[in-house]
Amino acid sequence: MIVILKANLDENSPEYAQIVDYLAHKPNIKTRIHQEIGTSQKLTEIYLIGDTASLDKTEIESLPGVDRVVRVSEEYRILGRHRDDSRPSGFEYNGVKFSQENLNVFAGLCAVDTPEHVESMLKALRANGQVCTRMGAYKPRTNPYSFQGHGKDCLAWVFELAGKYGIKVIAMEITHDSQLNEIQEALHKTGHPTGVMLQIGTRNTQNFELLKIVGRQRELPVLLKRGFGITLEESLNAAEYLASAGNANIVFGLRGMKTNMGDPHRNFVDFAQVPVVKRLTRMPVCIDPSHSVGTRDASPDGLLDIFHVTAQGVIAGANMVLVDFHPAPAKALVDGPQALLLEELPYFLEDVATARAAYEKRRDLAKRFLAK
Amino acid sequence: MIVILKANLDENSPEYAQIVDYLAHKPNIKTRIHQEIGTSQKLTEIYLIGDTASLDKTEIESLPGVDRVVRVSEEYRILGRHRDDSRPSGFEYNGVKFSQENLNVFAGLCAVDTPEHVESMLKALRANGQVCTRMGAYKPRTNPYSFQGHGKDCLAWVFELAGKYGIKVIAMEITHDSQLNEIQEALHKTGHPTGVMLQIGTRNTQNFELLKIVGRQRELPVLLKRGFGITLEESLNAAEYLASAGNANIVFGLRGMKTNMGDPHRNFVDFAQVPVVKRLTRMPVCIDPSHSVGTRDASPDGLLDIFHVTAQGVIAGANMVLVDFHPAPAKALVDGPQALLLEELPYFLEDVATARAAYEKRRDLAKRFLAK
Amino acid sequence: MIVILKANLDENSPEYAQIVDYLAHKPNIKTRIHQEIGTSQKLTEIYLIGDTASLDKTEIESLPGVDRVVRVSEEYRILGRHRDDSRPSGFEYNGVKFSQENLNVFAGLCAVDTPEHVESMLKALRANGQVCTRMGAYKPRTNPYSFQGHGKDCLAWVFELAGKYGIKVIAMEITHDSQLNEIQEALHKTGHPTGVMLQIGTRNTQNFELLKIVGRQRELPVLLKRGFGITLEESLNAAEYLASAGNANIVFGLRGMKTNMGDPHRNFVDFAQVPVVKRLTRMPVCIDPSHSVGTRDASPDGLLDIFHVTAQGVIAGANMVLVDFHPAPAKALVDGPQALLLEELPYFLEDVATARAAYEKRRDLAKRFLAK
Amino acid sequence: MIVILKANLDENSPEYAQIVDYLAHKPNIKTRIHQEIGTSQKLTEIYLIGDTASLDKTEIESLPGVDRVVRVSEEYRILGRHRDDSRPSGFEYNGVKFSQENLNVFAGLCAVDTPEHVESMLKALRANGQVCTRMGAYKPRTNPYSFQGHGKDCLAWVFELAGKYGIKVIAMEITHDSQLNEIQEALHKTGHPTGVMLQIGTRNTQNFELLKIVGRQRELPVLLKRGFGITLEESLNAAEYLASAGNANIVFGLRGMKTNMGDPHRNFVDFAQVPVVKRLTRMPVCIDPSHSVGTRDASPDGLLDIFHVTAQGVIAGANMVLVDFHPAPAKALVDGPQALLLEELPYFLEDVATARAAYEKRRDLAKRFLAK
Repeated sequence: MIVILKANLDENSPEYAQIVDYLAHKPNIKTRIHQEIGTSQKLTEIYLIGDTASLDKTEIESLPGVDRVVRVSEEYRILGRHRDDSRPSGFEYNGVKFSQENLNVFAGLCAVDTPEHVESMLKALRANGQVCTRMGAYKPRTNPYSFQGHGKDCLAWVFELAGKYGIKVIAMEITHDSQLNEIQEALHKTGHPTGVMLQIGTRNTQNFELLKIVGRQRELPVLLKRGFGITLEESLNAAEYLASAGNANIVFGLRGMKTNMGDPHRNFVDFAQVPVVKRLTRMPVCIDPSHSVGTRDASPDGLLDIFHVTAQGVIAGANMVLVDFHPAPAKALVDGPQALLLEELPYFLEDVATARAAYEKRRDLAKRFLAK
Repeated sequence: MIVILKANLDENSPEYAQIVDYLAHKPNIKTRIHQEIGTSQKLTEIYLIGDTASLDKTEIESLPGVDRVVRVSEEYRILGRHRDDSRPSGFEYNGVKFSQENLNVFAGLCAVDTPEHVESMLKALRANGQVCTRMGAYKPRTNPYSFQGHGKDCLAWVFELAGKYGIKVIAMEITHDSQLNEIQEALHKTGHPTGVMLQIGTRNTQNFELLKIVGRQRELPVLLKRGFGITLEESLNAAEYLASAGNANIVFGLRGMKTNMGDPHRNFVDFAQVPVVKRLTRMPVCIDPSHSVGTRDASPDGLLDIFHVTAQGVIAGANMVLVDFHPAPAKALVDGPQALLLEELPYFLEDVATARAAYEKRRDLAKRFLAK
Repeated sequence: MIVILKANLDENSPEYAQIVDYLAHKPNIKTRIHQEIGTSQKLTEIYLIGDTASLDKTEIESLPGVDRVVRVSEEYRILGRHRDDSRPSGFEYNGVKFSQENLNVFAGLCAVDTPEHVESMLKALRANGQVCTRMGAYKPRTNPYSFQGHGKDCLAWVFELAGKYGIKVIAMEITHDSQLNEIQEALHKTGHPTGVMLQIGTRNTQNFELLKIVGRQRELPVLLKRGFGITLEESLNAAEYLASAGNANIVFGLRGMKTNMGDPHRNFVDFAQVPVVKRLTRMPVCIDPSHSVGTRDASPDGLLDIFHVTAQGVIAGANMVLVDFHPAPAKALVDGPQALLLEELPYFLEDVATARAAYEKRRDLAKRFLAK
Repeated sequence: MIVILKANLDENSPEYAQIVDYLAHKPNIKTRIHQEIGTSQKLTEIYLIGDTASLDKTEIESLPGVDRVVRVSEEYRILGRHRDDSRPSGFEYNGVKFSQENLNVFAGLCAVDTPEHVESMLKALRANGQVCTRMGAYKPRTNPYSFQGHGKDCLAWVFELAGKYGIKVIAMEITHDSQLNEIQEALHKTGHPTGVMLQIGTRNTQNFELLKIVGRQRELPVLLKRGFGITLEESLNAAEYLASAGNANIVFGLRGMKTNMGDPHRNFVDFAQVPVVKRLTRMPVCIDPSHSVGTRDASPDGLLDIFHVTAQGVIAGANMVLVDFHPAPAKALVDGPQALLLEELPYFLEDVATARAAYEKRRDLAKRFLAK
């Protein structure tokens, strides 16, 4: 059960004290306070855990200071959409909004290699009006003898270059909690020239200890990728690990599933689940066309499969696109063959915009039809 | 190797005789003649089988009467896109065009039940300008004790009603070759009021004997569904069975794959392979959103998942949509829960049109970009 | 509901007439008579379909001539193990017993090629005391341009050779009902020198029309393979198609599932389901190690993977082994690389015997433990 | 390339110096020393990385002090079986031998709950002559709100009880590197009454950072479970992470794959890959029947499926069995329904012994046959 307090309710107010006192006297009920501090207002939610069936929803809602009470089902207590649950989705980070309503493109390098390549990429992004990117410093590789990323050594200069080109958010994968500290330290040392969205990859979706530690910090939002060999339900439960530890600023990422039934694509593209994730939870949904498709093959209409599956995700309401570009794919240290070229960036963005416009038209159509 | 003759070349002409004679003298080469008779012209292709590596492409192309020679790779000899193969895709049937360039919607009943329901459906289709539909008479059911369709008894009245409402093509599944005869007979007896596209379902994708028999007739085109538990390559080889038996008027249908990794959808939606099938073969590609999704669940934007995956298929260039409607889903004998309502038909068609317009815009964008 | 009559009850007896009359007067109940004629006795079962919930089990059991009444659950009505259902499993065909209690090995050629190869195989079988074999005349091939088997032309001489070498049962795949007629005719013309177990392969597991036609004849038993891309439940329902059409003399075959998660084996070996099939149904269970594994790779202990998975099936209680041998694998037209050599036959049989002895010891151990 | 030195070669000997000097002068070659210190001898291997193609195998083998040189293929450099590679598999830990030749059973509690239950379990093990067990202190759970194990608080008393009952090795899962420290500390504080085999579960198979850290210590051996949604090759590469970090004392565990094609078992049992892992690598292979099967269902012969799949793994040469028991399954905090009962322990062990004896008989048979 979640007790949502009136916006900006002061913790020192008598109303607040009364609510806390009321709940403290209920037997077998534990509470956990969750605060979301936005630019204009502070939202406080009190999670009630334990024998909540015995509580009277109407009685709690009648307390001064309480805005609403939501009874949550067992599944996805914090992130789920529960009956009569009209709480908004999403969050804002470093000036960029993430929600189930809008769309952000994160084009960038799968793996940071040279400062020249990073700068070329960032220049192209600025030239095309982009304020988000992806940059991989820590790379989990199937083979232990493959290049594993530059790690913490590249963080400072990547952040500074990003800041120079007006990037507000970098999606960056981490594979161990020590890397979280390294990133926070580098951000601090460089004076926060940009922001970082921590990315947890498909091999770590059920690395619960990492999720708990990342979930305990609330400075940086998290992009959690779906596990490529587990059910959707299991991956959504993994997201709940982050939320239950304290950080609900999560984007959920689809990136294709591991089975040869999706051949010749590298993974079986699962973007049909974009609307499913939005129905089951309040998380914005990201798609990763590059790792799903894994090739630069095109269909006879001239469009690359990567473009096609991106359009498929976007026309169904995806909220974020994570896509690999590279100034010189042949020289990329990781996943070069699938990278798009810098000169394809405006073309890609226009293609995305076309799909997004179609989605918005469809959404309006649904509204008109359902209003009848 | 395929020798494509000049359009309308007469079989009694000296050029034709010379070509046939030339090929007859080549050792270890067998030939098979394939003719495609369209409204305005007759196309003749001669398939060469055997030791074709020894043949001289340029020499054959220099024969009078020969338009072009295509060397085919081993895979999908007839249906495949081979190097330098610019032959057009598609065919025309009963006035309706099927190709990789255009889009046809087949809304209708999963299973024929009562004449009243069939007529309501057809009336709604005509009111919305549709000339194609789906109507199932023979239903393969997982459980032997489930309703198996009305079979041949309903054919005559279904065809007559279809003709009455201006339907040009009915997609109708068959599960045994005897049903092909029943359909042809019923069409004949009723005076061909409509046309039939034979549908081969996912459980019979590798029923090779059925494919050979269906492939030997060329009157009716075929919609072959992908096998839901085999690789794409295996299903494309199944299509080649039809073509190698003589009938290349095939639409290839995607309908979702059987694995719980696609839950909560009934099957794992595989429409990311729309562009793949178009790249590998010259077949138009159909999508079946109803059986892929299997529910009427909607996302918070109000759009049903069935609408979303349809839009995903169409924005990537799908050429045919097979979708279940029913005037009274609660009374449907098969797959009622997923059926769309008749009042949703104009809404669905408008949604499809929006996705199709976006696809065409994307295709034009690709042309412009690639022209640079 | 199944009414099991006393053994050898005469259809002209007053008891029989009374039972039929009693059931005929029950409203909304249809009956179907099923007879199993063995060497020493005739068993008659009456299947009751319809509103059986209203019937009184005890009352029916009290009728003279009735041995027992079994209330069947919805799943696998005929083949399933129902509550308190102690009916025996299995059947006898041409002197060979098939049941959940014993084990038969069917070593032989995946595809019939030359009379010399067939005869070498049969000679080896006789030399090793075998009376069953596999011989493929009709081969379903993924690629339409591959060798499709010699078909009916080889039937007569294969049957005669089999008879000459004392073979009692040949497992032979059919892919169309016309082949059933061809086999029956060839058996008749050659004077039934051997018997045939019709095999329905994994691509036709849900070819329901073929199942219905094969199920309507009761002369030849059937080996139904599990579909390699569907759930076990769906395949067991396919077996029920055969039984509900009239023929319950079915062996259920496991042959591996299609997914790259089983690499480097050709299919994902599923013999852990041997005990599952025996728990859910009364069918004997066959394993096909050759098509599951698909290679002749061996582990460091010298044993081929084909031997290992065979032992795995047998030690868990498998009742039939279908395995490919060939006198000259390099010359085999189908699946040569996985075939065992004739000189490996005694070695293979001894390996199977070791696993079977272990199974029987384990079964006795269970009996002793459960008796405590 | 691996240079294997003569056993017990002293690092201060002139031979050693000569070898190191020889290799130091080769261009583009890096070396890494790996020492295996057993009870009776010390083995030193020098891994050569870089441009090894240019090296002369015979020349190196001719150096005094060099026993053998093995050219390794790219795959599984350290753990793999390479051409002409007759190095032995396995290792000894705390007096227990682990190899591809023998078999150890680890029966125990999936999750530690009360001291009473732990002691009952250990007493039963001692009574049945067992010196290994499994005891879970850190439990990764799909749902964040489920019991997550007692963690470090239970370590000391669990170790002491284990020592009291003569347990030499406890398999214990860890999910974060901090737990490694906690275990080492608890072992130290309690005076090493027992040994611990670190277990890395299926959700962390590709948690490469954890693998690297665990691989860097060589005190405790590691049981690495196969990832339940990835290919075998990917999981074997994960094992190579451990080895390349320094610790090659690894047992590789099969535990079933995640797909509904294995229903009604919880996972699709993959024990047919026991011989595959032994062929591809030199690691001993463990099977986990409890988590594969997930139920206590039995077949009509009275044997539980858990017994059947265990026998399947063992008869194919499995080297370790990890199996859940519980004194009171109904009270178990994790995975109670699949746990075996303490009174079933002798029965289970006898069943395993029967399967093992059959394996050894089969191995001897193979030797005899191959000797011919």
